[in-house]
This record gives sequence, C-alpha cells and structure tokens, in this order.
Amino acid sequence: MHAVPLYHQIFLRLREEITSGERAHGSRMPTEQELAAAFGVSRITARRALAELASTNLVARKRRVGTHVIFEPPARPIEGSIDQAIESLLTFGRSTQVKLIELDEAPARAPISDALGVEAGTPLIRVVRVRWLENEPLGHLLSYVPADLGEHITRAALRTTPILALIEQAGVKIGSATQTISATLADASLAAALSVEIGAPILRISRTVIDTNGRPVQHILAQYRPDRYQIRLDLHKNKTDLHFG
Amino acid sequence: MHAVPLYHQIFLRLREEITSGERAHGSRMPTEQELAAAFGVSRITARRALAELASTNLVARKRRVGTHVIFEPPARPIEGSIDQAIESLLTFGRSTQVKLIELDEAPARAPISDALGVEAGTPLIRVVRVRWLENEPLGHLLSYVPADLGEHITRAALRTTPILALIEQAGVKIGSATQTISATLADASLAAALSVEIGAPILRISRTVIDTNGRPVQHILAQYRPDRYQIRLDLHKNKTDLHFG
Repeated sequence: MHAVPLYHQIFLRLREEITSGERAHGSRMPTEQELAAAFGVSRITARRALAELASTNLVARKRRVGTHVIFEPPARPIEGSIDQAIESLLTFGRSTQVKLIELDEAPARAPISDALGVEAGTPLIRVVRVRWLENEPLGHLLSYVPADLGEHITRAALRTTPILALIEQAGVKIGSATQTISATLADASLAAALSVEIGAPILRISRTVIDTNGRPVQHILAQYRPDRYQIRLDLHKNKTDLHFG
Repeated sequence: MHAVPLYHQIFLRLREEITSGERAHGSRMPTEQELAAAFGVSRITARRALAELASTNLVARKRRVGTHVIFEPPARPIEGSIDQAIESLLTFGRSTQVKLIELDEAPARAPISDALGVEAGTPLIRVVRVRWLENEPLGHLLSYVPADLGEHITRAALRTTPILALIEQAGVKIGSATQTISATLADASLAAALSVEIGAPILRISRTVIDTNGRPVQHILAQYRPDRYQIRLDLHKNKTDLHFG
C-alpha cells in the first residue's frame, strides 16, 4: 500500500467514474459540501480533489453554475443481449461455489446512491461474497439492492442462489444492464480475500441492473483474479441483419 | 521486473490461454517438442511448463494420447453486435491520435498462428501502435494480419485509418470476432510506452476478427491504461425479443 493523499484518492475515484462514463458528459459533479459529506472528509480535501479534476480537464468549474463533467469518452458502449448474459451469470453461479462474507443493511451513499438512482440515506441491502472454483478464490462481489426488493435475500438463500434470481423472486423483471470493465490492483483486503499478493492485477466489473420499468435494482462491483477468470465477449452479425440485411 | 523462471513464464502464458477459453476444453496441447520450438526453449523447460499445468488440473497428460485441456471455463461468452462494435472502434479511431511504432513482416508463431488458423511460418504483417488522447498515451496495440490482406497497410495509411478499415479495402467483409478481456501489470516496455509505472494495472483485450467466410483476418492484443480507458458493455433485450417475444 502506498501513502496516497486523501484528496488524490478521491480524485482517482472520481476520475474513474468520469472516464468510465458512469458520470456522463455534461452531468453535474457534487459540490464541495456534498463531496465532503459523501467521503467523510474536510471541505479543503474535497476542494483539492475537484481542483485536480479541473486541472486535468475532466471537469469545468464555473461560479454560480457549479462543476460539470466536460470529458467525453472516446469509445461508445458495446451492446449485448441481457437474456444471454443472465443465462451466463446463472451458469457461472451453478458451476462455482460461493462464500457469504457479509450481509447487512446500510443507508445509500454516493456513488452507489447515484448508480441506483435513490436519495442518499435510502436503505440498501449490502452483500459481500467470494466466489470459489476448485478450492481457490476467483472473485470478490460487493452488491447493493434496494431494501424493498430484498425480502428473499437471506443467508440461507445466498448460499445456493444468485442475487439476481432472488431479486426476480421479488417480482422484478430484468430489462437491461450497464457495465464498465476495467483493471485495478489488489489492495490489502482484496488480496487477502482472493489469496493473491498486494498489487496483483484485478479485473474489475461495475454493473447496474435495471428492471423493465427502468428502475435500477442492483449495483454490483465484481473483482476477479485474471489468472482464474476472464471475460469472453463474442461479436456477431445481429440476427435481424442475418434475416433481413 | 521479477526473475520469473522461464518454464513458469510459459506456464503462465498457457494457463491464460486455457482459462480464457482460447484453448478450449478437450483440445490438444502442443507436445514438448512443439512447445520447445514455439518458445525457443529446451525440452526440459517445455516439460516443466506442461507438468505445472497438469499439477493445477488444467490439462491431463496420457501416454500415447498426449496432453489435453481438461479445464472448463465457468462462464459462457457474452454476445454482442459486431456492426455496432466496429462502429464504436471507428469512432474511437477518429477521436484519438495514433502513433505508429513498428510495421514489419514476420513469420507466424504460436499462439498467433493458432489464433489466425495458419501454419507456423506463414508471413504476417505486424503493426505496433500507441493510441493517444489529449497528449497522453491511452493504449498499446499489437496487430497481426495475414500478409496477403496487407496491401493497403502502409505507414501513410496507418497514420489516418484503422487497420480494420484497411483490411476491408482489401475486399474483406467482417463477420464476427472473439474477444477475451483480462487484467495484467505493465512490464518495463509497456510502462515506457504508456507513461505509467512498472506494475501499473493494465486492461488487456485479445481479439480475433473473422470474415464472413470464417477466415481469421486479424489478431490484436490491445493493452489500455484503465485510468484513461475502460470498456462499456450495455446489455438489452434482443431486438427480436422486443418485436416478437
């Protein structure tokens, strides 16, 4: 672990959210006060983080108007089939073992509250799990689900059933998902959970699942050992193109 | 840089090819002789690499039958639209700058020859580029194209035009692609090319592009700085499902 100044840690987090498209071009950034509250830091620290974002041309700060994202991601999202992806997730769930680490209720805070489109303080169910394959850990999963959809999310159910399936049992119909795929390094706690060295490479997936009414129903941060799990993404002509194009 | 024994480096490379699905369940692994020739190492080194794969239950070695992959990837590939992905790649090409590092012709060797489905020794065009955005490097791209499709791949053309577009100028119709997305650490040369520290996290994409006749026409290894570029993958109901489902 390096001794990274607090303001720079916040800068790094926000930069990632901007370059990933999670904070879209033109969207409003939190104020110094909001940032200070969300991260539990002083306003001076929050101000330095925003100043560093401005100096790297990711955001523009204007008097009265506030701070807005000016970065435009160079690549557009790739699009895939949600039904096929859910099937793949369920297969993955069946063919790996899961170890429940934590299950609790916690009030929403940024950026999770933003991702789920809820007010800060809204009660969320928080689930931490580690997936195993052949007696070695594969990935660390941190999930948030609005508490009103969590009636089926119990310790017993989590042992056998993927969270998405438990959300569907609450009457939710999955409609779409947005995902950001990135790479990071294992910090001390992730390294311990995944049996790797601190600083080992980690494949990082941030996903928000949305129901057919447009409501975000799950936000998950999945962090995988790339020596044990990689993403396969195959591209084809659309079925409609094959039939009619 | 760590002093990793040669046999372990080969083990790591082969393990990645197996866990990523590039070497499929049931497929034959190279013999000791083939491996020694492909990597330019002794048969003893090749044997140790295969023994390490066998000891981690990724392959099984049987007398007379040879070595076969027994690992089954737990997740199925996600599927996406090739046309939309090509559009995204071209947009990406237009909105970033490219610096050509190397352009030469080289005989195919494993695993590139396997990925492109050609005999070892087949002439390939090899292109090394770095993509830049706003005066900072973003990604390092290593491409291989069969030489007979390379007539339009010139220094001048590469300055302005994505390789896929140049392949299309040779009469190729892009049909599909398989991709593996992973994470790794920057080694010394990649760190220098991308202006990051040795050991920085890297988002790694290995992609084989296939034409409408099923012929592999490009293999590319793209390595990105995750603080500058991340993959967005959005999942929806299929259009056909929306119309008829």
